Amino acid sequence: MTFDFKFTADGLIPAIVQEAVPGAEFPSGRVLMFAWMNRESLEKSMETGLMHYWSRSRGKLWLKGETSGHTQKIVRWFHDCDRDVLLFEIEQKGGACHTGYRSCFFQELDREAKPLAVDEEKSFDDGVVYSE
Amino acid sequence: MTFDFKFTADGLIPAIVQEAVPGAEFPSGRVLMFAWMNRESLEKSMETGLMHYWSRSRGKLWLKGETSGHTQKIVRWFHDCDRDVLLFEIEQKGGACHTGYRSCFFQELDREAKPLAVDEEKSFDDGVVYSE
Repeated sequence: MTFDFKFTADGLIPAIVQEAVPGAEFPSGRVLMFAWMNRESLEKSMETGLMHYWSRSRGKLWLKGETSGHTQKIVRWFHDCDRDVLLFEIEQKGGACHTGYRSCFFQELDREAKPLAVDEEKSFDDGVVYSE
Repeated sequence: MTFDFKFTADGLIPAIVQEAVPGAEFPSGRVLMFAWMNRESLEKSMETGLMHYWSRSRGKLWLKGETSGHTQKIVRWFHDCDRDVLLFEIEQKGGACHTGYRSCFFQELDREAKPLAVDEEKSFDDGVVYSE
C-alpha cells in the first residue's frame, strides 16, 4: 500500500481522531485524541479497520484498545491540504482517554490558561480497566 | 501568563482547530486545520481572542487571516490529558484552508489510501483572496 504523505524525519505523521456522528456529511463529532502513526501502523489500521498507532515513548506499534478493549473502528479518513496530517473519523468503544474520560480533551481552560472545573462524568473506571 | 504545557524541544505545541457549533455541550464541529503554536502565539491568541500560530517554514508569528481576512475567533480551548496537545473551538470567517475549502481536511481517502472525488464546494476563491 502506498501512502503519499509527508512523514517527519522519524517516519511519523500526526493523526487527529474524531468521533463519528451517524449520517453527518462531514466528520463533526468530538475530537477524542491525538497520536502519531508510521507506515506500519497505517497498514495495520487499513488491514483491520481498527486504529493502530506508533508509541514514541515505548517505541512500538500499538493497537488502541489492546489493554482496555476500547477499540476505534475506522469510518472515514482524510489527509490535509499539505498531506502531513491525517484525520480519522471513528466509532469509539468505551472511552478514548486512559483517564476514563470519553475524550483526552476534557480539560477546558479559561482566557488566563487556568483550568476550569470538569463537570463531565467519566466513561469508564480507569482504575479497573488498566489495573493489570 | 503561565502555560503549564509540555512543549517540544523547539518550544512548540500542536493545536487542533475545530469549528464551533452554537450551544453544543462539547466542541463537535468540523476539524478545520492543524498548526503549531509557541508561547508567543499563545499569548497573542489569548490577548486578542484570535488564533495566532508559529510558522515553522517562515520562522515567524502568524495571525491566521492576516492575508485572507479569514480570522478565527476563539470560543473555548482545552489541553489534552498529557498537556502536550491543544484543542481550540473557533468561529471561522471564510474558509480555513488556503486552497479555498472550508477545512484543510477536505480530501477523503479510501481503504487503499487512494483519494476519493471531492464533491464539496469551495468557501472562497483562493486565486482572488491570495493573489497579492
